[in-house]
Amino acid sequence: MSNEFDFIEKIRQRAAGGSATVPDLRLGIGDDTAILGEETGRETLITVDLLVEEIDFRLDYAIPGWLGHKTLAVSLSDIAAMGGNPRFALLSLGIPPRLIPRQPDDERSRFWEEFFDGYFGLAHRHGVSLIGGDISATPDRLSIDSIVLGHCRRGAAIRRNGARVGEAIYLTGEVGAAASGLHLLLAGQRANPAERSPVQEAIRAQLAPQPRVEMGRALGRSGLVSAMIDVSDGLAQDLGHLCAESRVGALINLRQIPVCASLDLLGLESGERFTLAVSGGEDFELLFTAPPEVEQQLRKMAGPSLRLSRIGTIVEGAADQSPIMLEGDGPLRPLAIHGHNHFAGGSR
Amino acid sequence: MSNEFDFIEKIRQRAAGGSATVPDLRLGIGDDTAILGEETGRETLITVDLLVEEIDFRLDYAIPGWLGHKTLAVSLSDIAAMGGNPRFALLSLGIPPRLIPRQPDDERSRFWEEFFDGYFGLAHRHGVSLIGGDISATPDRLSIDSIVLGHCRRGAAIRRNGARVGEAIYLTGEVGAAASGLHLLLAGQRANPAERSPVQEAIRAQLAPQPRVEMGRALGRSGLVSAMIDVSDGLAQDLGHLCAESRVGALINLRQIPVCASLDLLGLESGERFTLAVSGGEDFELLFTAPPEVEQQLRKMAGPSLRLSRIGTIVEGAADQSPIMLEGDGPLRPLAIHGHNHFAGGSR
Repeated sequence: MSNEFDFIEKIRQRAAGGSATVPDLRLGIGDDTAILGEETGRETLITVDLLVEEIDFRLDYAIPGWLGHKTLAVSLSDIAAMGGNPRFALLSLGIPPRLIPRQPDDERSRFWEEFFDGYFGLAHRHGVSLIGGDISATPDRLSIDSIVLGHCRRGAAIRRNGARVGEAIYLTGEVGAAASGLHLLLAGQRANPAERSPVQEAIRAQLAPQPRVEMGRALGRSGLVSAMIDVSDGLAQDLGHLCAESRVGALINLRQIPVCASLDLLGLESGERFTLAVSGGEDFELLFTAPPEVEQQLRKMAGPSLRLSRIGTIVEGAADQSPIMLEGDGPLRPLAIHGHNHFAGGSR
Repeated sequence: MSNEFDFIEKIRQRAAGGSATVPDLRLGIGDDTAILGEETGRETLITVDLLVEEIDFRLDYAIPGWLGHKTLAVSLSDIAAMGGNPRFALLSLGIPPRLIPRQPDDERSRFWEEFFDGYFGLAHRHGVSLIGGDISATPDRLSIDSIVLGHCRRGAAIRRNGARVGEAIYLTGEVGAAASGLHLLLAGQRANPAERSPVQEAIRAQLAPQPRVEMGRALGRSGLVSAMIDVSDGLAQDLGHLCAESRVGALINLRQIPVCASLDLLGLESGERFTLAVSGGEDFELLFTAPPEVEQQLRKMAGPSLRLSRIGTIVEGAADQSPIMLEGDGPLRPLAIHGHNHFAGGSR
């Protein structure tokens, strides 16, 4: 492949293949901009996520298809966290010389084939069309910027600032899986997609997280949820954001936090284990608040396959104490908010 | 500045400062996604441009404010090339350690102050609001991804594929300025914003190009233009794209191509000079086609300050010859289409 246009043409063909007649898509890849239809009574949601080699991922333990999957997954998770329906995506790729395809069937071409298998696999599963992007060379690192647009009914987006005192706090799935996967990878373990084991489940949670697209969309349509955020920077930090924006506090029951069993693989003492579970990040679960009386409806939405935990209650925020207090393990104590600092490394 | 949240908070405050009551902006920076209103009868245009250090720009000759300006300018140019009205922007920044602010008033903080002076200066001039983005560390290079959304009336976007035989071909401004500026910079000349000279004009064209936002918007509203593209990859290549998408050819009059006088600064022989003018790229001028009888209306839109050149005519495309033929200098001859290959370096 001697130039970028062949590369883009291949992506364009794959993008068009999955989206013969997409509502609201007037024009996809191939002009100065994409063109999308609008509709009164609806709102557009838009998010962008930057993933940088050596900071957010490493190619020595990456599986190209999972990297393509994760690229889209992190942005789908943001749309889910607003209760939206993801529809369109754009993708910027900064590609270093060692990943620029030279021959139609060389190792680099296969890297991108697999990358886009993962990307489009997830996109098609959720009805998302790739409509644009940009490509540049980079001197040495792969850099990926993922943009996703979604829709919701006018006024129906679930922000972070709507939590009210007395409401229950819910969390989908479990926390700590992605962090334990990262620890295992850094300790030398490698992904084996064919193998099912606790180690592989943890690695998969890190490298190929499942965004809660259906649950987010269902919660958005239900009108039952007052505030929501995705747990990408760690439960403690993201709950802290939700409390700060809603100007409330949270009382969390330690025993109700759904900690992933894979953390036991790391041989940590219990305090470290807990810290990693609530501060490790990248779990891409949904954290939300709702009146406790609608809990049965919420559980019905989650269905049998998605774990839903009620982990605490929204309380008055007090200026002189931590916004998040822990109970269930001796006296009430504040939850230290350690989270991810993207300037120290990583982008969520 | 110890972490990313302070950095984002500063950007958020600047973004909010210029956009107290922005129509259709329901929610900007600060949640999982931004939220925008929609309106039946209108369409959303969206574009993304990736700028990578050492490929698309170099910090040793950059002026931070001009880099911020150019970041937005390249995307505004895409909206202009569809005849759209730019409205909203998002920005992803991958920041290397040497540019991460540590103290409120250190050199790195000033870099970003100036970068955003340039970015927001251009944004406010055109009524564009920054509504979201992402930040990550990078190992060593600054990486910038610029996303802009615009609006046009339903069906009014000007694509590349509408040119018809017999129509005239127009170009705003001049070509070759940005390429000569790049040559001067690579030869050791440096920008001096205080100085007005042919050398400085060329450097400014490269480092701080002016997108044709008003002209693009006016052309879009006029309904007079059949096809349009911005000249970012070079006149020859971009006219080639327009011809290919419209399935036509073009007959260009060599003497009508508005070549920037700054190319004379480079001491090239005339063939090289012409090649650089039509293949140098990054001029961000608008190239469009329209029936010749509306020329007076087009000139009125351009006004006295924007040069508008009629450079040729759309002709039947012939399978056995180059889509672009040159006249005005001896016998008719094909225009060789050299252009920018982003895999060799650069992103437009």
